[in-house]
Amino acid sequence: MEIKRPLLLISNDDGYQAKGINCLIDMLKDIADIIVCAPDDARSGYSCAFSAGIPLRLNLHRKEQGVEVWSCNGTPVDCVKMALANICKRQPDMVIGGINHGDNASVNTHYSGTMGVTIEGCLKYIPSVAFSLCDQHADADFEPLRPYVREITQRVLNEGLPKGVCLNVNFPLVPVYQGVKVCRMAFGTWYNETEKHHHSRGYDYWWMIGHYRNDEPEAEDTDNWALHHGYIAITPTQIDVTAYQAMDQISSWFNV
Amino acid sequence: MEIKRPLLLISNDDGYQAKGINCLIDMLKDIADIIVCAPDDARSGYSCAFSAGIPLRLNLHRKEQGVEVWSCNGTPVDCVKMALANICKRQPDMVIGGINHGDNASVNTHYSGTMGVTIEGCLKYIPSVAFSLCDQHADADFEPLRPYVREITQRVLNEGLPKGVCLNVNFPLVPVYQGVKVCRMAFGTWYNETEKHHHSRGYDYWWMIGHYRNDEPEAEDTDNWALHHGYIAITPTQIDVTAYQAMDQISSWFNV
Repeated sequence: MEIKRPLLLISNDDGYQAKGINCLIDMLKDIADIIVCAPDDARSGYSCAFSAGIPLRLNLHRKEQGVEVWSCNGTPVDCVKMALANICKRQPDMVIGGINHGDNASVNTHYSGTMGVTIEGCLKYIPSVAFSLCDQHADADFEPLRPYVREITQRVLNEGLPKGVCLNVNFPLVPVYQGVKVCRMAFGTWYNETEKHHHSRGYDYWWMIGHYRNDEPEAEDTDNWALHHGYIAITPTQIDVTAYQAMDQISSWFNV
Repeated sequence: MEIKRPLLLISNDDGYQAKGINCLIDMLKDIADIIVCAPDDARSGYSCAFSAGIPLRLNLHRKEQGVEVWSCNGTPVDCVKMALANICKRQPDMVIGGINHGDNASVNTHYSGTMGVTIEGCLKYIPSVAFSLCDQHADADFEPLRPYVREITQRVLNEGLPKGVCLNVNFPLVPVYQGVKVCRMAFGTWYNETEKHHHSRGYDYWWMIGHYRNDEPEAEDTDNWALHHGYIAITPTQIDVTAYQAMDQISSWFNV
């Protein structure tokens, strides 16, 4: 009797050629069939953006035993939508974003294209996980993540995730992990986000850069704290963004 | 004694020339000073994306009594960041996104550039509101919104909003409003999202389109229900996306 292997849909925001996504394939290809559909180039900071205005194209780069690698000229979310509609012959058992070069903790959740992938999977009711490493270098070493990536993926394949909940998993850059912490998202702030330059043709322009500040450094239950102290940070993340605790106050404004 | 007028920072994802943002200026310019910094063209579906890779520019289009209108070549979120860093001489009292041509209820919250504006304001701890009308036409009639936009803006200016909470306000397209409902975000799904075409040079391409389905049409506490029944839908929206209710389950996987 043939047992059907699970199907993983993998994307990222660093592009299909990035080391992180290729390491991820290597970590998981023995436990699942894999379809990769990732941007044809870096799309960091694309959040849940999709392309309303450009024609999207797909390119198949390689197809070998259990692994297909496609690229798309759109955003990370476009990649997931395109793969689900036009590549996957059945519904994937899981959507995975990453492994991202750089962390996606705290407020970066909102800006991250890796999280865009994961939220898109979750919006389609597919168990979804984002993996990110606190190392932006193109040649970052992802090998220490291997057992954790495999264990978390296997857990989610076996047990699923609650409806509307995905996982945002961030790995610190430390010699030895202190363990795993299940965390909440920290409040933090990007500041000095624009850097002014002058073009010799007579106009000013700005590059988006910025520095990050954890606004609650003492709080030990946050992702920022966990990463800062050498723990792998798993933040269960939900797509229902309703602020239930504020409903009474706002309702009182309208006597409803 | 001179009383300082409040300062509003306004942006959108339809571009600074759109009717919706210009109607918004007209509705609020007697109660506040206004700085507009909006995309130089339509940027629908840009979510919380920011531009990591392109040089950003600002253009001042008009400056009159209490109103400055700038455009930027970036995303809606870029516009807010650029305005806060390089245009506003003091912290705005409020950030407003809109008025959007088209609704931003339910899962559209995640894709919306209008909500990107509002979430960015909220991430900067500024009381922030998004206004959207369920009418995508360029010449949509925004006039019926006027008293509600003014009342909600004045309320937020007077009373503020809880930390980390912004408002997503959607107006139905009906002859007479049934009232105001404070709602939760509905679960819904976009389907048939890609439309395939063939280019005469021999390749396929796809346009991102799609149809929306409310996945819980019977639930009377959602934004989709309110809009469908003629109510103005106010969804308090939070930037902390932690799924607290899932933390125990995930923790049990790691004995933490």
